[in-house]
Amino acid sequence: MTGWLGYEPNGWWGIVEDALAEDVGPGDLSTLGMDPGRIVQWEIEAQERGIVCGVGIAASLLGPMGTESGTMTLEHRDGDVVDRGDVILAGRASAARILQLERTALNFLMQLSGVSTLTAKYVDRVKGLPVRIVDTRKTVPMMRQLQKYAVRCGGGYNHRMGLYDAVMIKDNHIAAHGSISRAVGVLRALNSHTTRIEVECENPEQVEEAIQSGADIVMLDNMDPFTMRSLVTRFKGHVIFEASGGISLDTVRGVAETGVDVISVGALTHSAPSLSLHMEFRN
Amino acid sequence: MTGWLGYEPNGWWGIVEDALAEDVGPGDLSTLGMDPGRIVQWEIEAQERGIVCGVGIAASLLGPMGTESGTMTLEHRDGDVVDRGDVILAGRASAARILQLERTALNFLMQLSGVSTLTAKYVDRVKGLPVRIVDTRKTVPMMRQLQKYAVRCGGGYNHRMGLYDAVMIKDNHIAAHGSISRAVGVLRALNSHTTRIEVECENPEQVEEAIQSGADIVMLDNMDPFTMRSLVTRFKGHVIFEASGGISLDTVRGVAETGVDVISVGALTHSAPSLSLHMEFRN
Amino acid sequence: MTGWLGYEPNGWWGIVEDALAEDVGPGDLSTLGMDPGRIVQWEIEAQERGIVCGVGIAASLLGPMGTESGTMTLEHRDGDVVDRGDVILAGRASAARILQLERTALNFLMQLSGVSTLTAKYVDRVKGLPVRIVDTRKTVPMMRQLQKYAVRCGGGYNHRMGLYDAVMIKDNHIAAHGSISRAVGVLRALNSHTTRIEVECENPEQVEEAIQSGADIVMLDNMDPFTMRSLVTRFKGHVIFEASGGISLDTVRGVAETGVDVISVGALTHSAPSLSLHMEFRN
Amino acid sequence: MTGWLGYEPNGWWGIVEDALAEDVGPGDLSTLGMDPGRIVQWEIEAQERGIVCGVGIAASLLGPMGTESGTMTLEHRDGDVVDRGDVILAGRASAARILQLERTALNFLMQLSGVSTLTAKYVDRVKGLPVRIVDTRKTVPMMRQLQKYAVRCGGGYNHRMGLYDAVMIKDNHIAAHGSISRAVGVLRALNSHTTRIEVECENPEQVEEAIQSGADIVMLDNMDPFTMRSLVTRFKGHVIFEASGGISLDTVRGVAETGVDVISVGALTHSAPSLSLHMEFRN
Amino acid sequence: MTGWLGYEPNGWWGIVEDALAEDVGPGDLSTLGMDPGRIVQWEIEAQERGIVCGVGIAASLLGPMGTESGTMTLEHRDGDVVDRGDVILAGRASAARILQLERTALNFLMQLSGVSTLTAKYVDRVKGLPVRIVDTRKTVPMMRQLQKYAVRCGGGYNHRMGLYDAVMIKDNHIAAHGSISRAVGVLRALNSHTTRIEVECENPEQVEEAIQSGADIVMLDNMDPFTMRSLVTRFKGHVIFEASGGISLDTVRGVAETGVDVISVGALTHSAPSLSLHMEFRN
Amino acid sequence: MTGWLGYEPNGWWGIVEDALAEDVGPGDLSTLGMDPGRIVQWEIEAQERGIVCGVGIAASLLGPMGTESGTMTLEHRDGDVVDRGDVILAGRASAARILQLERTALNFLMQLSGVSTLTAKYVDRVKGLPVRIVDTRKTVPMMRQLQKYAVRCGGGYNHRMGLYDAVMIKDNHIAAHGSISRAVGVLRALNSHTTRIEVECENPEQVEEAIQSGADIVMLDNMDPFTMRSLVTRFKGHVIFEASGGISLDTVRGVAETGVDVISVGALTHSAPSLSLHMEFRN
Repeated sequence: MTGWLGYEPNGWWGIVEDALAEDVGPGDLSTLGMDPGRIVQWEIEAQERGIVCGVGIAASLLGPMGTESGTMTLEHRDGDVVDRGDVILAGRASAARILQLERTALNFLMQLSGVSTLTAKYVDRVKGLPVRIVDTRKTVPMMRQLQKYAVRCGGGYNHRMGLYDAVMIKDNHIAAHGSISRAVGVLRALNSHTTRIEVECENPEQVEEAIQSGADIVMLDNMDPFTMRSLVTRFKGHVIFEASGGISLDTVRGVAETGVDVISVGALTHSAPSLSLHMEFRN
Repeated sequence: MTGWLGYEPNGWWGIVEDALAEDVGPGDLSTLGMDPGRIVQWEIEAQERGIVCGVGIAASLLGPMGTESGTMTLEHRDGDVVDRGDVILAGRASAARILQLERTALNFLMQLSGVSTLTAKYVDRVKGLPVRIVDTRKTVPMMRQLQKYAVRCGGGYNHRMGLYDAVMIKDNHIAAHGSISRAVGVLRALNSHTTRIEVECENPEQVEEAIQSGADIVMLDNMDPFTMRSLVTRFKGHVIFEASGGISLDTVRGVAETGVDVISVGALTHSAPSLSLHMEFRN
Repeated sequence: MTGWLGYEPNGWWGIVEDALAEDVGPGDLSTLGMDPGRIVQWEIEAQERGIVCGVGIAASLLGPMGTESGTMTLEHRDGDVVDRGDVILAGRASAARILQLERTALNFLMQLSGVSTLTAKYVDRVKGLPVRIVDTRKTVPMMRQLQKYAVRCGGGYNHRMGLYDAVMIKDNHIAAHGSISRAVGVLRALNSHTTRIEVECENPEQVEEAIQSGADIVMLDNMDPFTMRSLVTRFKGHVIFEASGGISLDTVRGVAETGVDVISVGALTHSAPSLSLHMEFRN
Repeated sequence: MTGWLGYEPNGWWGIVEDALAEDVGPGDLSTLGMDPGRIVQWEIEAQERGIVCGVGIAASLLGPMGTESGTMTLEHRDGDVVDRGDVILAGRASAARILQLERTALNFLMQLSGVSTLTAKYVDRVKGLPVRIVDTRKTVPMMRQLQKYAVRCGGGYNHRMGLYDAVMIKDNHIAAHGSISRAVGVLRALNSHTTRIEVECENPEQVEEAIQSGADIVMLDNMDPFTMRSLVTRFKGHVIFEASGGISLDTVRGVAETGVDVISVGALTHSAPSLSLHMEFRN
Repeated sequence: MTGWLGYEPNGWWGIVEDALAEDVGPGDLSTLGMDPGRIVQWEIEAQERGIVCGVGIAASLLGPMGTESGTMTLEHRDGDVVDRGDVILAGRASAARILQLERTALNFLMQLSGVSTLTAKYVDRVKGLPVRIVDTRKTVPMMRQLQKYAVRCGGGYNHRMGLYDAVMIKDNHIAAHGSISRAVGVLRALNSHTTRIEVECENPEQVEEAIQSGADIVMLDNMDPFTMRSLVTRFKGHVIFEASGGISLDTVRGVAETGVDVISVGALTHSAPSLSLHMEFRN
Repeated sequence: MTGWLGYEPNGWWGIVEDALAEDVGPGDLSTLGMDPGRIVQWEIEAQERGIVCGVGIAASLLGPMGTESGTMTLEHRDGDVVDRGDVILAGRASAARILQLERTALNFLMQLSGVSTLTAKYVDRVKGLPVRIVDTRKTVPMMRQLQKYAVRCGGGYNHRMGLYDAVMIKDNHIAAHGSISRAVGVLRALNSHTTRIEVECENPEQVEEAIQSGADIVMLDNMDPFTMRSLVTRFKGHVIFEASGGISLDTVRGVAETGVDVISVGALTHSAPSLSLHMEFRN
């Protein structure tokens, strides 16, 4: 039992090590002279309701491997709902070591749980509708993969991971190539047959041209629900529709009801407040 | 004119390069076939009011060095107030290159400006009082130094950078050494004469013992304003007082009025929503 | 004029630096005591006919930037046909520095030109037919991106770059999920809407199931031309067909004539003999 | 039993990790949702006759350490002859994990076995003669050490590893110093007493001067067998003779019969076709 | 029992790995062909009297973890006095592996024991006086943390670790700000409340100004003992006094008797001769 | 004019950057608030007589490249004799930047000049005799290459750089192989024809066996001068003789007079006191 939601982002341990080094630096001054054999019992407890994410990370830091001592029990795993007062992880280990690892473990848990919790709120608003809530590339630097994993833990889906795994044609790409159809043509020719192409459209004419050019996905950028609904109705089945642009918890259901397949929300990763958690000790 | 607020965090370029690699990965699929000689005029514009931070980072990515082409003008520098519609940076450069750098530059700018903006709100609430608003170690992984820089840009101050530059004695350290005075004694003996020692206290008795043991700083953890005020009155001048624990924009002025020297707020770095900014193009 | 074919693989300089370090190690023993001001005129010359690739790499090593001296002229760029005796690059620079860089530059040029040259032979065999010759993941360790770039220089196309940018369902994935349709369903649900899914099929029944499940691409693995032709005829337009498995210069045209869209050839990258090139000096 | 031929190249694990990261990148999309507890039985099988090399690498990836599960049996070790259908390695492990590691393990095995197999062909041609077949610095970038190890597994020997472990004086070094004797003199003076010096010679006069100057090794560059034989006869015992320059499987025995001590062949590492191997599964 | 003095410098293993790579490079030529199963018994023995430091490092290299074989006994730990002929560490392991690790392990042990031994001489000279012998930033590149640890093992204390954990105001800082009081004011305002400020003073007037400005520590730079004593007497209790500048074993007691709190000695780390140690084998 | 002695150790900049990062860490606290435009004139001055080494390193840190401002003049280059009061380097640059770089530049200069100075003393003692003073592998961790360069600047020569560029057969290697002749035989067979073999001998019988086995170099380990002289006389011309073992400034000339070719001295790198240098400012 590792705490992860079935699949772990590749290479996550590297950033965890780097974050630990960022905090400990040349060494922890406050545990000098503390007997490393002194054992403490610790618990990580939720201080508010939310979706927990990062349990696998915290477990790798605070468990037998990270502390080279003691034991640990996972009470929850990534994706679980926790309530105020719920214990997420608990263990026994060297007090000095736990004091050095505590902040790093909690910083990951709080940030990622914040993302999962906010995602779950959006997902909840569109309950029952055949639509995906997805993230964007508006992530906190170096946290792209972990935040996208947190989105999945919250019930959301991912958009492309970066510039390297799908094509997105924006107005500047269109301008550079002269038209949507030329841009799609050039990019289809130069990319692998395994690559999907999405076109960002601002009006129905662009949508029509994108679909005729063979785009796989059309992004409806900042369009009103009425326009979106009519486009979806007209072209249903020919393309994947993604709605994007300033969609909030208040407006998301209305957008979903237009029939789009995907709704992308930048706030999931760039503005999620952290979930309150803390560590308690019993000596 | 570099955009920085007088001093740049050491080694910031490393994380910027890593974040760019995180986004571009093995290569940008969407600019294949785009003439690298095609020049575009771009502007970064604020979409809401706030304090801008990260201009130096954005400038290094989008300016002549990062794009190997074109020119750039900085309309604002870190710490400046910007309003909706204000242009922060503008330039001309290869369209293909800008499209590859845009997201990474904006991700830094939005995250850091969010921290500066929230800090400025706290600072504004305590205007006129001799107190410092400071951050904590509750930072987003890998962003410790940049977020702490953003706190300074917002008018705040920094607490210790990590475990390595000051001593903080918490209840577990006290338990391990038997008493506050023993903990202070051991840690004073083992640390450099250049190191300050702070003790986290939960009641007046602990405060008294910490001061008698020669602590440099006393943290008043989750105490009510009345208690804090009486402790500050009693021991003013003997020690630096720091208030901590769940202090919000609503309560911060009341805490400041107790006479404490320093108020630490975790939310500055763990829960600041990003500031809305976007890039506009003129072809 | 940089020598590259319009787009450079991201991060190529890192592996070039590493390869140089691999050769020079703690230092070149043979140029000790050689006057660094001594200038030499050098030329890289083809010793057999082929497609050149790696000119941009060689230019960055041997040109003014790599040698901190001298000048350079590019006579050819990546993708050009060269004949025995053709000069590809020529320049003047410090003899000592060129002697340290020569082998590394040539090792890249010879390896990559070998890949481009072999690719061009396959492409030439299918001339006039609407089919792509593509590479595979059977690349030399650490050369994935550069070899795939060399395939493009030779007139070929790329398959997915790695495990991270498209889904390929093989027999083991099918076995794990119970059936092709279940595998496609699970992987469609868990992957981004920007991701294409390919299914490796060994018989017409599997092809039919894959297409009904909504696969984007079907790989016809080691099938005879007759079977391939009948499948292509039956399902043309519903899916992209890729032929794979032991296809040689002798058999490739026959495969192409079945009407498949894509033919993947592992030998392009795992067994291309290097193109003979050498450096000549005029003192 | 580790699969290695007595000695492992230092630091090989680094490049294996890097190659795995090159393939997996941000994560394998095709095993999402696959139960990590699902175990598969796998075998790596030769598809043609040759010398196997890289078993230690494949074993470290696919064995209990790399897969964190299952078991493995090595049927062959580096340097062994294998025939079509022979099983080289076999094991049981998590199907998902094996699917992620398979390609990287095979890419190393196929490339290195190709080098060993080609080397063995050259070695076989000179059977019975007191001569070493050695490699050159014409290696695939980043594979220098592993390819040189593969040469040893095929029965060959190594030339110097890089620019740092022996001196080679070529015509440009001679030109820079004015004469062979001056070049040998300067380089003997500046290098450690533990360093051997080789001189590349194009005619008998140069050979004579090199030997008189105290060179340890003389390279006979592109000379005809008759000239080589007469030089070897004349100076036998005073120096080590190395023949070099366009030596093929057809000509190597003739060169060996001239009595030279060493024959260097660039093709061993720059043009060895990979050995065909594949992985079979039993679910 | 690990050999360390209670606390290990953070991240020490990185530099040990790098130093091993520096020595072994692409591989040890002298153990080729040596049976890795051949076991040897080894001992590290002191060849002169001193304080040992680096036992934990040597143990990690030569013990079961580093050699993947054999056993080890630690006869001494960091900080212990050893005499000529004393065995520090002893073990049994693969001869080939020990021969590769021996030099790296001894290089650390000899260097660090040299620092501890020299420190202990200074500490011994001031026995009975309430003064700390501390190091400086004049350390050997890359050995900062380990040398500072060695100072502690020799009974000394540390000054600040680097530029990042305390403020030191020198004459150039004073000149830049206009006066000591302005420099202290600016730096107090810009630094964390957890940071101590030291001022380097060359005369009594500067000392007085520094103390009035609220400096935490005053460095008496190259002052005569008489002046130092009068300053210490006058300001005792208001500030920490540090004596610095050309203090030798001959003069250190005289300086200590002035009543200063701290004496800093650069020679501890920049000029400590290594302690003679060697490894003996019993086959 | 770069300050280097004709050839720079490869990759030296990496360790200089690392050493700077070691000192500056997360940032220099003492230059916060200092106007980066404030220019200072600085000089590095010798405080005692010696051979200077590291000028190229100091120049790269303190010159226009490292400080991004100002100018610099090199008064001396590596290998020059300097006297007390001599200025080595002087320049004008941002005061804040110089204060951050000063200590790192001086630490390299002082350490390496110490090595060069001690080497020159040994070289001076054997003046007129045909013998090389060489270093060993007893170097300070991470400083191997730079220290060996400093030995050359002091007029000495280098022994092998590490375990990878020559074979040294010690008693344990002999024991493992059964005899000197078997050890030489095996190692000659497994190593490149470009590799020299040295045998460490403790008595005349071993010397004789080593020479008969074809060793290139014989180390006379801790032998008395009489024995060494007789061995040198007997075998002159057949082999290179190296004397080693506890050779001091007092005994080195006597050893040299025995006729050995090479004398190796560990103290050159493990126990050289640093040369006193400091930086002076003119505001």
